[in-house]
Amino acid sequence: MTDRAAQDEDPALDARRVSAILEAVEARDAPRAQSLVGPLHPADAADLLEQISPSERRDLLALLPGLVDGDILSELDEALREEVIANLAPAQLAEAMRELDSDDVVDILEDLDAPQQAAILGTLDLADRAAVEKSMSYPEHSAGRLMQREVVMAPEHWSVGEATDYLREVAHLPDQFYHVLLVDPRMRPTGYATLGRILSSPRDTRLRDILEDSFRTIPATTPEEDVAYLFTQYHLISCPVVDETGRLVGVITIDDAMEVLDDEHEEDMLRLAGVGEASSMSDGALATMRTRLPWLIVNLFTASISAFVISRFEGTITAIVSLAAVMPIVASTGGIGGTQSLAVAVRALATRDLTAANAGRVVRRELVSGLVNGLSLAVILGIGGTLVYGQWKLGLVLGMAMIVNQIVAALGGVLVPLGLERWGLDPALASGTFVTTLTDVMGYLSFLGLATALLL
Amino acid sequence: MTDRAAQDEDPALDARRVSAILEAVEARDAPRAQSLVGPLHPADAADLLEQISPSERRDLLALLPGLVDGDILSELDEALREEVIANLAPAQLAEAMRELDSDDVVDILEDLDAPQQAAILGTLDLADRAAVEKSMSYPEHSAGRLMQREVVMAPEHWSVGEATDYLREVAHLPDQFYHVLLVDPRMRPTGYATLGRILSSPRDTRLRDILEDSFRTIPATTPEEDVAYLFTQYHLISCPVVDETGRLVGVITIDDAMEVLDDEHEEDMLRLAGVGEASSMSDGALATMRTRLPWLIVNLFTASISAFVISRFEGTITAIVSLAAVMPIVASTGGIGGTQSLAVAVRALATRDLTAANAGRVVRRELVSGLVNGLSLAVILGIGGTLVYGQWKLGLVLGMAMIVNQIVAALGGVLVPLGLERWGLDPALASGTFVTTLTDVMGYLSFLGLATALLL
Repeated sequence: MTDRAAQDEDPALDARRVSAILEAVEARDAPRAQSLVGPLHPADAADLLEQISPSERRDLLALLPGLVDGDILSELDEALREEVIANLAPAQLAEAMRELDSDDVVDILEDLDAPQQAAILGTLDLADRAAVEKSMSYPEHSAGRLMQREVVMAPEHWSVGEATDYLREVAHLPDQFYHVLLVDPRMRPTGYATLGRILSSPRDTRLRDILEDSFRTIPATTPEEDVAYLFTQYHLISCPVVDETGRLVGVITIDDAMEVLDDEHEEDMLRLAGVGEASSMSDGALATMRTRLPWLIVNLFTASISAFVISRFEGTITAIVSLAAVMPIVASTGGIGGTQSLAVAVRALATRDLTAANAGRVVRRELVSGLVNGLSLAVILGIGGTLVYGQWKLGLVLGMAMIVNQIVAALGGVLVPLGLERWGLDPALASGTFVTTLTDVMGYLSFLGLATALLL
Repeated sequence: MTDRAAQDEDPALDARRVSAILEAVEARDAPRAQSLVGPLHPADAADLLEQISPSERRDLLALLPGLVDGDILSELDEALREEVIANLAPAQLAEAMRELDSDDVVDILEDLDAPQQAAILGTLDLADRAAVEKSMSYPEHSAGRLMQREVVMAPEHWSVGEATDYLREVAHLPDQFYHVLLVDPRMRPTGYATLGRILSSPRDTRLRDILEDSFRTIPATTPEEDVAYLFTQYHLISCPVVDETGRLVGVITIDDAMEVLDDEHEEDMLRLAGVGEASSMSDGALATMRTRLPWLIVNLFTASISAFVISRFEGTITAIVSLAAVMPIVASTGGIGGTQSLAVAVRALATRDLTAANAGRVVRRELVSGLVNGLSLAVILGIGGTLVYGQWKLGLVLGMAMIVNQIVAALGGVLVPLGLERWGLDPALASGTFVTTLTDVMGYLSFLGLATALLL
């Protein structure tokens, strides 16, 4: 019986299935390819298209022209959508769009170029088209773009029975809805009741008597990362979106918020590492290069600052050449310390655990932690340096430089993102490059400066 | 009217409110403190406790002894829970626990020490206690720990009307439920219907005729990161959990999956940066130090490998001391390139976009992208080095070393996490340290090696 349950579920997209599909494609065996791809969940079918090579993708789509429907299209990586949509017949595209709620259509539309946008808008019926165009009128990455226009709402005076009768009559309900939203006569949302409460209450219960405490509204211009924060912080499952006059314009559901949260994490992680834009496994080498080269070039110049600092001490290095060998230890350990402090700070800013209320205390904590870590490392490195080079003074210089640089690293790691945030920039944006430049320069400067003062 | 809506919502926890609360605490003005803290959403009240200092927290809890309820407790950072729970009277703790679903009680319980666990279990009534103990019998970080035992289920033959009547009669329904789950006579889940479909269907509709395609079950021993993946990949909103015989033991809801997803992201980001465990803004300097010092010490030793490599070329550096100044440029730019490739790979492994099916192609892509980036950087650095030092041969050595190191960086960034994953380790675990060690060593080795061969 466990087997039966397993068979009921969608088959997994494992390496074996992928190679079986590719074999069927190569053999131009459409029925076999269909029998392997057909039962896949749309999300897995999209993953399949992302994981195979461009030429395999072309062959698969040629073999199974009816494969791509609206669900697969909305699961597909943005980088591939344009390519896949270009291969769809207009009628097929129209059919794919008809299945989707307006938020999914908007999500697909916003990354396409103008002619493709026009082609898709042309396939929608008038009401859907108006809904999509309204959403598209809000700024990119705003609540207005995330919301679906399909809303289940009721007047404030309705009872559970009236709401239930209404729901049974409506021809088309949204794919996802978790609340019935109450609106006043001017279409302003005033509360919501969960479907669970409605289902479990007697028919004559007034909806206004079973409203949820968690109710709040989101202005349509709210940035999407703030939307994701509200969903996470307040455990929302859906939330009405209002325009500047407080009128209801749509609803955001948790699946969209979860996607934004995931995208924000990706952005933070990649930006911190100096990768320009969201990059995808289906990107080619050229696209990959384009997201990375800019920060590499920036780093080439910031690394030249370190080179300049070192060049000022060439006399010292000529006198004691072993300094050249050990100096990167101080710089590199500083880089790790800075990266640690930075990752914690960027994450805490994203989850709003680091705020104006505790920034002072966190900076003091980083200072103490950098000092203590620096002292611990200084003892190890100082003893090690003394033993290897037989000079306690070199050990002392290494240890002192290590302490200085760990303090700089810990402070830089928290102050750089705090500074970027205060200036209205993304705290993750290239902070990694700034902080490692700082720890490199300070590492070489403190070590070679102290060496010049104490060893020559 | 927009104002009225705004007033209905929970007040924000901004810096002004935090300082007003701290002033009230200092003035021992309990009514004022209560009026400021009381209206906060439990999640914000928990954030408040996390953001103030330990002594301020003690004073606030002493001033408002009734402040902490079950909701605040389950929102609170793990690092603080033990401290806060120790300050609660047993009756208050019992009251706090009674409000919570079993998954929240388990979540609180699992991070406490044995006496506190026993104290909490003692406050639960027999049925709740059995539910919690059953969950605790599953491995840590498994589906069994995430699930709530409160499930809304119905026999397979029920109609919409029967289900609705049943829901109206049940005294206590879970806080969150989105489906009615169908079970066979042996308690094995066979499908579910959304509350939306149930509400909008006529009373005589059979539940089995309105089941969802998305239905699947999760074994209780499934690791929680796999649970989060299933929820994201298949847009689940809730999912039944079964034991090894396929019997229903609980349900996981999307809010728990979203929290796991968020925790996994945090772990990836921090591990990549060499921070040992999830660290929190309310940690003291000592706890902060403990999460960071281990990898700093590891890096101290790996950096010594670079120092050793450089020391082998002391003769070359003595001959041309300016090499010491420029050599970190090659190493540092390699570090950035490796970090970029690494961040993309770790993220793609987490989202399962990088699999056995496309690993070969991704590695080839990294190779090409590293080569092209290396060539671009080599041109800039080669020309720059030639101009600054008036030696085209030095420029050539810089450029060649850069190309070698960018290729090593791009490959290392993807092969290190792929290797860790193949050996069953977390791909994010300290990959940063491995990759930068690799790029440092290769950067110094290729540059100084080429310099020795071509410049001496």
